[in-house]
Amino acid sequence: MAHIDLGLDEAEHPGITGLMRYRPETAAPLNALADVLLHGTHPTLTPGERELIAAYVSGLNDCTFCASSHSAFAAAQLDGGMPLVESVRADLDSAEVTPKLRALLTIAAAVRHDGRSVTTAMVEAARAAGATDLEIHDTVLIAAAFSMFNRYVDGLGTVLPPDPSVYAERAQWIKVGGYVR
Amino acid sequence: MAHIDLGLDEAEHPGITGLMRYRPETAAPLNALADVLLHGTHPTLTPGERELIAAYVSGLNDCTFCASSHSAFAAAQLDGGMPLVESVRADLDSAEVTPKLRALLTIAAAVRHDGRSVTTAMVEAARAAGATDLEIHDTVLIAAAFSMFNRYVDGLGTVLPPDPSVYAERAQWIKVGGYVR
Repeated sequence: MAHIDLGLDEAEHPGITGLMRYRPETAAPLNALADVLLHGTHPTLTPGERELIAAYVSGLNDCTFCASSHSAFAAAQLDGGMPLVESVRADLDSAEVTPKLRALLTIAAAVRHDGRSVTTAMVEAARAAGATDLEIHDTVLIAAAFSMFNRYVDGLGTVLPPDPSVYAERAQWIKVGGYVR
Repeated sequence: MAHIDLGLDEAEHPGITGLMRYRPETAAPLNALADVLLHGTHPTLTPGERELIAAYVSGLNDCTFCASSHSAFAAAQLDGGMPLVESVRADLDSAEVTPKLRALLTIAAAVRHDGRSVTTAMVEAARAAGATDLEIHDTVLIAAAFSMFNRYVDGLGTVLPPDPSVYAERAQWIKVGGYVR
């Protein structure tokens, strides 16, 4: 049970979905931010790659609802599917991703720990692997945003869905329509 | 100098202000979120109290730009002014705040560390001191949001303003107009 009374059936509206119904005034900018970062048009990073950054950070933060959700959303939009997502989350060094994506995920992990732990060497490594300034910017902001979403979901003690198949179902919905209705 | 080329005079646009000019697509939802959380109408928490939560979290995260900004914004909107803000940031236990605000700031500090470190006892203590569910919700989300803003500002290596008087100047502007123009 969540730390506050959300006034709804928590099993029907697990994780952040119940919080968004509880407080629509904050849900609107939160969904708009997620949509620009993860689903909206981007010149070079695919939605699958951006969802993978969100899943990776959420996994490092041990936020089960967010990590399960964004792993499913990434898997639905990446050629490698869930095996690729799981390999990144299990061991980034050995995962079969491009050097550029590995360098961006390394920056994301640093941001998750503390913004100040991003080093010039990490940024130069990403740039040497072909990353643009916009890719570095968006990677930092996705990692920072999930440092928020993870704390929001767990700080209010929200519940997990009773049936984990909802993550994959919701992935199809996000893939088509994004985060803003 | 920031980790990426923001295409502007960083001394003129320090901290998050340069990032918002660099990427207006993400600035819009970020400003909308800050406005609802810190400036918009709230049934019980004043803008000064909400800015104090933001300043407190940013100080714990050692984000100089955010802590200086939101300390100034809180000071401009609280009867106790900067002495009160500084006393909270220096030692919450001895600061002259209401038991309710102290309990909410304690929850904010837990969220900053990790959402899962918010305990039922902390929430019950806040409720016993008179906190509503909405106040607990907004406290958790403010603390989570500044876990994002702090990482965004420091993760991209943004610079501080050469003249710290800009924080107090901007406070007057925020107090009147909020975060959305």
